[in-house]
Amino acid sequence: MPAPASNRSRARSADFGQWYLDVVRDAELASYSPVRGCIVVRPYGFALWEHVRDALDRRIKETGHENIYLPLLVPESLLETEAKHVEGFSPQVAWVTHGGADELAERLAIRPTSEAMVGAVYRDLIQSYRDLPVLVNQWANVVRWELRTRPFLRTAEFLWQEGHTFHASAAEAREEAERMLGVYREIWQDWLAIPTITGRKSEAEKFPGADVTLTGEALMGDRRALQMGTSHDLGSNFARAFDIRFLDRDNERRHPFGTSWGFSWRTIGAVIMVHGDERGLVLPPRIAPIHVVVVPIWRTVEERAAVEAAIAPVEAALRAQAVFGDQRIRVRVDRRDDVTPGYKFNDWELRGVPIRLEVGPRDVAAGTIVVAERLPATDGTGAKESVSVDHLPADVAARLERIQTRLLERSITFQRANTHRVSGWDELVDVNAAQGGFLVTGWCGSAACERDVQATTGATLRVLPFEGELEELEPPTACARCGAPASETAVFARAY
Amino acid sequence: MPAPASNRSRARSADFGQWYLDVVRDAELASYSPVRGCIVVRPYGFALWEHVRDALDRRIKETGHENIYLPLLVPESLLETEAKHVEGFSPQVAWVTHGGADELAERLAIRPTSEAMVGAVYRDLIQSYRDLPVLVNQWANVVRWELRTRPFLRTAEFLWQEGHTFHASAAEAREEAERMLGVYREIWQDWLAIPTITGRKSEAEKFPGADVTLTGEALMGDRRALQMGTSHDLGSNFARAFDIRFLDRDNERRHPFGTSWGFSWRTIGAVIMVHGDERGLVLPPRIAPIHVVVVPIWRTVEERAAVEAAIAPVEAALRAQAVFGDQRIRVRVDRRDDVTPGYKFNDWELRGVPIRLEVGPRDVAAGTIVVAERLPATDGTGAKESVSVDHLPADVAARLERIQTRLLERSITFQRANTHRVSGWDELVDVNAAQGGFLVTGWCGSAACERDVQATTGATLRVLPFEGELEELEPPTACARCGAPASETAVFARAY
Repeated sequence: MPAPASNRSRARSADFGQWYLDVVRDAELASYSPVRGCIVVRPYGFALWEHVRDALDRRIKETGHENIYLPLLVPESLLETEAKHVEGFSPQVAWVTHGGADELAERLAIRPTSEAMVGAVYRDLIQSYRDLPVLVNQWANVVRWELRTRPFLRTAEFLWQEGHTFHASAAEAREEAERMLGVYREIWQDWLAIPTITGRKSEAEKFPGADVTLTGEALMGDRRALQMGTSHDLGSNFARAFDIRFLDRDNERRHPFGTSWGFSWRTIGAVIMVHGDERGLVLPPRIAPIHVVVVPIWRTVEERAAVEAAIAPVEAALRAQAVFGDQRIRVRVDRRDDVTPGYKFNDWELRGVPIRLEVGPRDVAAGTIVVAERLPATDGTGAKESVSVDHLPADVAARLERIQTRLLERSITFQRANTHRVSGWDELVDVNAAQGGFLVTGWCGSAACERDVQATTGATLRVLPFEGELEELEPPTACARCGAPASETAVFARAY
Repeated sequence: MPAPASNRSRARSADFGQWYLDVVRDAELASYSPVRGCIVVRPYGFALWEHVRDALDRRIKETGHENIYLPLLVPESLLETEAKHVEGFSPQVAWVTHGGADELAERLAIRPTSEAMVGAVYRDLIQSYRDLPVLVNQWANVVRWELRTRPFLRTAEFLWQEGHTFHASAAEAREEAERMLGVYREIWQDWLAIPTITGRKSEAEKFPGADVTLTGEALMGDRRALQMGTSHDLGSNFARAFDIRFLDRDNERRHPFGTSWGFSWRTIGAVIMVHGDERGLVLPPRIAPIHVVVVPIWRTVEERAAVEAAIAPVEAALRAQAVFGDQRIRVRVDRRDDVTPGYKFNDWELRGVPIRLEVGPRDVAAGTIVVAERLPATDGTGAKESVSVDHLPADVAARLERIQTRLLERSITFQRANTHRVSGWDELVDVNAAQGGFLVTGWCGSAACERDVQATTGATLRVLPFEGELEELEPPTACARCGAPASETAVFARAY
């Protein structure tokens, strides 16, 4: 059993990094494992991931993609086929050299990503324009040998989905890469309640082997940015490297155009860092493993019997109530008898359960239940309140919808407040040092200026935003570094 | 596009092994990959696995288990902690020796199974009787370096679920191992339509590190047996090896008792081999990726328009119809215009779609649709028939239920017909050579007799059946090998 929240030091404001690690441990999301850089995802953390995964999986299927499964192990020669790709990934590869007692003739990489495997497999499966588009996805583990790891955000092994597609034209591939970034954005916004700035990566930051990398960047509670997921237009780079060709309608053999796109469990880290507070996790109801926790309150055996008898039908009525369209309300009654109600309150607050119900003998007599939200609104909405048992299921469903909306509004407000237009070098350096957050500025497009910003400020070029992404901000007209006319609006930030 | 079924040699009766490989390839379930012994599971095969997985996952959760995720890589020293376990698995382990450019201080095994990792992780998480039972499960990939591989049945990497539990008493652990074998049996029977003989494994066949291994064994179409899944009572073997202890209610520190149980994608291989026929796959409706395929039939542009206009509302009405409780009917309209209806019939028969609908101009005029089942009953039920469009959704739902039942009855009949009571050595040898199937006989319990049977006949001891499993057969009283009094009833068979 965890120590109650009050026993732990968890000063989010004082040490955000340590607070994050404490929350991951104390809310029992994940723990360290006996393997360097790898975590054990515990039931509560995995249930959170399952809700995110299932929501995204549904949208991936609704947009016409089918799931497949590709081998974990990638022969070294395959990984080396696309030159930029291998250059980007080989420093991070874990290598299998022996099978049983025998040394292998060729080393096998544990997949850091599967573009190379996809290239080799679809060389045989794509023959004609009738075989296009190929629209596939896999949910899989990947390994990237990282020196500095952090639960969910950066781990040597992680779970993700990787989509892979091939198309007959460059335009279709670009459209697909944009469509899937749009699907990701829906999940980030509507499920995780996290706003993002979407757009392109710079040449220096793009995926090894891609023509264009699209990204969504979010702002964490410490005003550092996190890359939430990326979608790549691979052009015909992999198709050429793997000699994939299709016979087109005009009887010409052509290389198809590819995309790939990935969304990992690091988004769980974002949920923690965007919504959490001094008391621990705050979970958006749509992905919360438990929507409602019920805490019985009693002193005597008679009271206990009366309270438990009153809770049973409430539990059943709540479970029968739909919310967010097709979800059922997920209820947990905390029947532990070796801890106090106060301990339970702290415990479930730490775990970010959106709604707590308290049922004591006086509530039973009155036919009411006390409802308390994990994070009342600043105007007091959602603070402790008595609700009639009859209205409870509908009341709770409506609250869950409101909480979901409120969390998104809150994170949008935070992002806006921490997105700063900076128009020259001094302002960029000063605002970055004093406030952090997203720094919106002009950029001449040169890699040298991009490097200089990073070297001086620690902020990297997160995203070249799509038109309309920052409409309230007039774009700066000069490069913040060199003063030359800006060819792009760029968003810099210190990042995870 | 696949070649039509009629172009392929697929003589199930003549060469069952080759027929299996042809079906896996031609129905586009899986293809070979560039990595030795690893397959690519294609969309149709993966959808089949998803339906099986989701059904089992629901039952695993309903029986109180929670999903987790453990690291892929297991340090060599951990794998070696339980002596019998490492002895059983080390010949099959793929070893990671390098991360990036650096050689690792300790080799890492790619998990062949996770008991060792579970032991190391739960040593820290189990402290008190309040932490018990631990009831967790993971869906994961594992690697076992196999010399002879076969798609789904035996692959160097495969997907499975592995459940891991710890309990305060030996009795609870035994009960859990039995409960989960029961859950597996439900899935095999009610979803895959495959009967099994359940019971214990012999000492020689049990899981390395287990006290008792429970198994379900099914009979494939060539009368060879397949182990469908196993559930292990681990006693306190792993708890002792990993020094896991809990403080009991009486203030004594004790080792808990463990179980583990696994169900893999080899069950997809069983579905192919139990139900398939000369024309390809036959899929139980509950797990079929497509329940109903609609083939439009037309010659002229006008006919095409009329037929397509008639199909649209049928498609919508079918999709809205529930079947098997919470499933929706899964419909595919085959609108390809570069192949003939006859080609489509073969194509979807090869893929085992349970029901085909044919819609031509005459059907449109009459307000009917032609319904044909993939595998009509021997009495002709399910052969081509005209059904009124109005009755179609209910008719199709009822047929799917009937087909599911009929497939199970058919496989039960086959298993019964190929389960032979043999009462002496000559009969065992003769029946095995002439007929194969399950050979039910007496066994004295000695490993020597078990080895002799295998050495002479190629049949292994599949299962020591639970009481009541073979109630129609009177158990033989003497060991088929040595003639000594039988202490057990044993089921031998040649197996995959």
